[in-house]
Amino acid sequence: MPQYFSETGSVEAVNARMGEDASPRLAQVMASLVGHLHAFIKDVQLTQEEWACAIDFLTRTGQLCSEQRQEFILLSDTLGVSMLVDAINNRRPSGATENTVLGPFHVAGAPRREMGANISADGKGESCLFEGRVLDPDGKPIQGARLDVWSDNADGYYDVQQPGAQPRWNNRGIFETGADGCYRFRGIKPVSYPIPHDGPVGKMLAALGRHPYRPAHMHFIVTAPGFQTVVTHTFVGDDPYIASDAVFGVKDALVAPFQKVSDGETLWRSPFDFVLVPVSP
Amino acid sequence: MPQYFSETGSVEAVNARMGEDASPRLAQVMASLVGHLHAFIKDVQLTQEEWACAIDFLTRTGQLCSEQRQEFILLSDTLGVSMLVDAINNRRPSGATENTVLGPFHVAGAPRREMGANISADGKGESCLFEGRVLDPDGKPIQGARLDVWSDNADGYYDVQQPGAQPRWNNRGIFETGADGCYRFRGIKPVSYPIPHDGPVGKMLAALGRHPYRPAHMHFIVTAPGFQTVVTHTFVGDDPYIASDAVFGVKDALVAPFQKVSDGETLWRSPFDFVLVPVSP
Repeated sequence: MPQYFSETGSVEAVNARMGEDASPRLAQVMASLVGHLHAFIKDVQLTQEEWACAIDFLTRTGQLCSEQRQEFILLSDTLGVSMLVDAINNRRPSGATENTVLGPFHVAGAPRREMGANISADGKGESCLFEGRVLDPDGKPIQGARLDVWSDNADGYYDVQQPGAQPRWNNRGIFETGADGCYRFRGIKPVSYPIPHDGPVGKMLAALGRHPYRPAHMHFIVTAPGFQTVVTHTFVGDDPYIASDAVFGVKDALVAPFQKVSDGETLWRSPFDFVLVPVSP
Repeated sequence: MPQYFSETGSVEAVNARMGEDASPRLAQVMASLVGHLHAFIKDVQLTQEEWACAIDFLTRTGQLCSEQRQEFILLSDTLGVSMLVDAINNRRPSGATENTVLGPFHVAGAPRREMGANISADGKGESCLFEGRVLDPDGKPIQGARLDVWSDNADGYYDVQQPGAQPRWNNRGIFETGADGCYRFRGIKPVSYPIPHDGPVGKMLAALGRHPYRPAHMHFIVTAPGFQTVVTHTFVGDDPYIASDAVFGVKDALVAPFQKVSDGETLWRSPFDFVLVPVSP
């Protein structure tokens, strides 16, 4: 007699159906997913109305996705999933620069700029000098490291969020280190901003009593031949949202100094060194 | 110092963010969801590529949803979630008729028909007499019970899947019991059919080595004042897919006799009694 579905044997009933031809990794992932999904439903004794609400939420989340908007990544971000996957896949020895979320606003192909150049093209915001070194774990400078950097503007928007209203490649640029491993560029002191919160994820945050803000940060992708790529931010430590980033991206070691160095035309300086780990042979 | 996100403390970091104003039930459900979701990711050590694949899968699943198609319900069905939620919310004493999935093809407002009427309007298929009684747990007939019944046609399609190509309300009808609690109607012996499998869920089933078929079944919603509503099917026991329903809807007690009673014009008879449980006072 076949073993039909039952409440107690629900996980086994579903996973027993997996065919011999399924890839072992897919079979492993799906079996674990079914186990945890059913355990969640049993744990909270999910009602039919709550199930219908979940179906509707997922449907609307998918329907909002487009070339310009990825609501499922926002969902992943706000539930800590993106940071967890990043953490699992980028464990590094103590002292090495840690990763954080890439975020949806990176654009490939930013202009390569001369060391010291100003990436702020709209004239808005408080000027800030970002400088430091790219080092190996022994503290030796890495030559030929590329830093792909981007931030929002003084109004809290990335250029891609305001096409036409901001100069192209505003607050973006790519820099390459010389033999001293040093980088230096001028931008603005970034400002905090809300993630897009006019969709299902925004409504979820509101229902959970959570705000949609990210603390101010400068994005970096640091690459160098023979070293693991670092995808990270540096954060402004006195930001009001530093302890409550909507996407959980903040780490202690990524909070950078922002030092006021002139008051005439306000000028900040944010020194930060990156330590890259060699790719395992 | 704030407690930032970490791999080991990921669940606590997310759930600590919940505000005081969140409804207690929502807070409970979301805290459990985050716990099980993170446990799944840690369990399988999900890679960045797999995460991206999951985001893409969920996005395409949502984008396929429309008034005519609910791909997220298909996903829930094929992962045993729909049956599990139904089981949790419809536990009944031994002897009472069990629920199974509603499915996406129920249409409210089917025509009320005289007892004994034929619901097959397209002249296709092997004729079948469905008959039995609607009883309370003591075996007493329930008068005024309504049976809303529907099935696919001989080609394996519900009328709503082929508007224009099938007569309106083909293989659907509503019947009401008299004082004897008996019901009787003629339809066709249902046939097995695949769930829609040209979308992401169909691709998932294929990758898991699973077929998309449901064993042949007649749908019933049985309601009576003062009794719990039964949403169920009766199944054709010798169907090749009886032990591998793509949505896990089969239960032992729902496999009904289908007896051949005439060979001239093939005629079947499927007797089945429904036992309804009183609503708790």
